[in-house]
Amino acid sequence: MSSITRTGGRVAEPGSATPDGDSSIARRRKLAALEQNPSWVARRRQILDAATEVFRAKGYRATAVSDIAHALHSDRANIYYYFAGKADIFLTLVQPAVEDAALEIEAAAEATGSPTDRLLRAIEALTDCAHRHFPYLHLFVQEDLRYVIDENTEFEHALRQGRDRYESALRRIIEAGARSGEFRAEVDPTLLRFAVMGAVNWTHRWFAPHGRMTGAEVGRAFGDIFLRGFAATPPEA
Amino acid sequence: MSSITRTGGRVAEPGSATPDGDSSIARRRKLAALEQNPSWVARRRQILDAATEVFRAKGYRATAVSDIAHALHSDRANIYYYFAGKADIFLTLVQPAVEDAALEIEAAAEATGSPTDRLLRAIEALTDCAHRHFPYLHLFVQEDLRYVIDENTEFEHALRQGRDRYESALRRIIEAGARSGEFRAEVDPTLLRFAVMGAVNWTHRWFAPHGRMTGAEVGRAFGDIFLRGFAATPPEA
Repeated sequence: MSSITRTGGRVAEPGSATPDGDSSIARRRKLAALEQNPSWVARRRQILDAATEVFRAKGYRATAVSDIAHALHSDRANIYYYFAGKADIFLTLVQPAVEDAALEIEAAAEATGSPTDRLLRAIEALTDCAHRHFPYLHLFVQEDLRYVIDENTEFEHALRQGRDRYESALRRIIEAGARSGEFRAEVDPTLLRFAVMGAVNWTHRWFAPHGRMTGAEVGRAFGDIFLRGFAATPPEA
Repeated sequence: MSSITRTGGRVAEPGSATPDGDSSIARRRKLAALEQNPSWVARRRQILDAATEVFRAKGYRATAVSDIAHALHSDRANIYYYFAGKADIFLTLVQPAVEDAALEIEAAAEATGSPTDRLLRAIEALTDCAHRHFPYLHLFVQEDLRYVIDENTEFEHALRQGRDRYESALRRIIEAGARSGEFRAEVDPTLLRFAVMGAVNWTHRWFAPHGRMTGAEVGRAFGDIFLRGFAATPPEA
């Protein structure tokens, strides 16, 4: 179980200036979440969908709960009946995708095949995951976690841990390939990792779920490019 | 001459709600810009440096002129004595880098070498450009221009044209390589372009100007990975 899963639904908005400082709203929300009334569940889904569009267009930091409310012709107080705040909405959207991606790439890193097979599997798994969870993994990838995007440290920690698991698994695969001699000695493992992460993560800028290729097909095409290069006849080094 | 150059210094803030609606501030700014008084120039540089940090951490859209003023322990009115607004500051920062990158990649696209040589040159030119103009090309790349980041359409147009020149030149190089048979027939030209753009543009998340490699070295390492692949002994297709 990852910390993302554990902290997922329980991240509160920082400070008491939000309507969540009104404990009666928080109590009503918790009660409604237990009851799972179909109209409450449906409205909650509407809020998540509207929030997805706002987060994609503006990024996490520039998004306010009032922007999400505005997209629904509603007000902030209504949103707080469904979510503790912006961090809660964001984690609800991205958490399953981030958890799945981390598990997939960790499974690839621990698989029994050669480092080449493991790297190809990891690349395909990540682009496939981005497609299956579209656009939620991309919502996560577009945030630059070198900077604090929310003062809520629990939320920040959950996101950073997702990123670290992903990067660490990819590092292990590539270092194994370099050590074994399966990867060319001239290839710098760190640069290969950055090139692969770049190609895969940059899909957040162009991939469309109903385009001419599936996520898995994109991943296989990328894997082939990274494995063999683009040259029909590689020149001598 | 690109439209970025032409519109560069003259983009005004939209609306009249900003202090720039006060034409006396605009007049004083224009006069100061003509005079180039050393203390005015020095203060303008301080504002640009503070704005760079704020834009990097928050992105264009989430940044307000008051955030930049706050970083300088100053106020918005003071900033408007130096710049017409946020769009003006941003273009002043990124315009030389974007113009240089576009010219470099267009020069690579029109060079006389083989498509392979042109692609390797373009990759190296872009990462070198990101280093020489650090962090201003990255400031541009981190913005997702599929979404409107500013209601000022002239500003939006200038940024989009920079991106389009860059992408179009890269497309021409890769299509030439595919047509000539120099690139493997199995490599999808669009996917190769997205993989290269991903690796190059993703440097905005990790490249440090005083790290162990220069931008040009990163570009040469990426070029080698894309040209030959990572496999020491490529498996049969």
